[in-house]
Amino acid sequence: MSDIIESEIKLKLENKNIDDIFSSLKNDGIEFIGEERETDTYFNSKYRDFKKTDEALRVRQISNNNEIELTYKGPKIGKISKSREEITIKIKSENMDNLFKILERLGFNPVYKVIKIRKYFRDKKFIICLDRVENLGDFIEIEIDNGTEEELLNYVNSFLYKYNIKGSKISQSYLELLVNKNE
Amino acid sequence: MSDIIESEIKLKLENKNIDDIFSSLKNDGIEFIGEERETDTYFNSKYRDFKKTDEALRVRQISNNNEIELTYKGPKIGKISKSREEITIKIKSENMDNLFKILERLGFNPVYKVIKIRKYFRDKKFIICLDRVENLGDFIEIEIDNGTEEELLNYVNSFLYKYNIKGSKISQSYLELLVNKNE
Repeated sequence: MSDIIESEIKLKLENKNIDDIFSSLKNDGIEFIGEERETDTYFNSKYRDFKKTDEALRVRQISNNNEIELTYKGPKIGKISKSREEITIKIKSENMDNLFKILERLGFNPVYKVIKIRKYFRDKKFIICLDRVENLGDFIEIEIDNGTEEELLNYVNSFLYKYNIKGSKISQSYLELLVNKNE
Repeated sequence: MSDIIESEIKLKLENKNIDDIFSSLKNDGIEFIGEERETDTYFNSKYRDFKKTDEALRVRQISNNNEIELTYKGPKIGKISKSREEITIKIKSENMDNLFKILERLGFNPVYKVIKIRKYFRDKKFIICLDRVENLGDFIEIEIDNGTEEELLNYVNSFLYKYNIKGSKISQSYLELLVNKNE
């Protein structure tokens, strides 16, 4: 909801899929928060190319939720993780058609959809997301809400070691990965 | 809420103020809906001048209401009344700061505020608004939600005759009147 500098690290899984990791986390008693299907529609501007400015404008619909989210993401700030300004407002789902219309009238057109099943866990101040992304595969995203990039890196390294996970660090968003794949 | 072609006629009062008319409507048993203080913030775009394109982007805060409205208005369509496309979404008030931030990041800056006390009446399918606008004076706006401009004109003429109201028809918005006054 609020205007924060969010830090997250994303990994593309190489030796396991998220079903394996889901079972391991459950067995270890890590707190499972829930599962959602998220449909993200990304917009680009008629007036400046968000791909070039490294910005994003997104409408997120979440299954079983009567609210949608409108999020603006500013250009990346950090070099190692993906810190960036992120501003979100929540809007009742019944307004979705009109939100899309207003955005289009103002010069923003939907250009891409990213659809994923996301399973959330919480471990102290870290959020672990197990993501299965349509047309892309399985990923882990680990986020820290209020802390340093160093704390996040340390946590991620010990997490990968503990669960014997091999993965490559990805600095691109799912949107960018999908766009690159389709180009 | 929905995407409608709205028709309304606005009059600047010349021989009465809205307190007189308020009493007359109450005495005649016209249905009084309520009174609100509306604070409208209008945005302009960095990329196209809404004054030239005859568009508007507005955030409306209403007293005693936990929702704010974001409205896009397209260029005027009709010649006599002020028909135009109008698209609105409602957003919880707690999101207001973030809504303003997102709009600014996307290139929309607040340029004007219009503050008014509005008293609403309903008479069949017509909505009568008695408006006291800060720095502008007293106005009546009569709207028809679903009907022709001709029906609206006929109703307005008989309304003015019945209540002995002299006023000049205004095709400009309160925003335009305020901008002109300040130029």
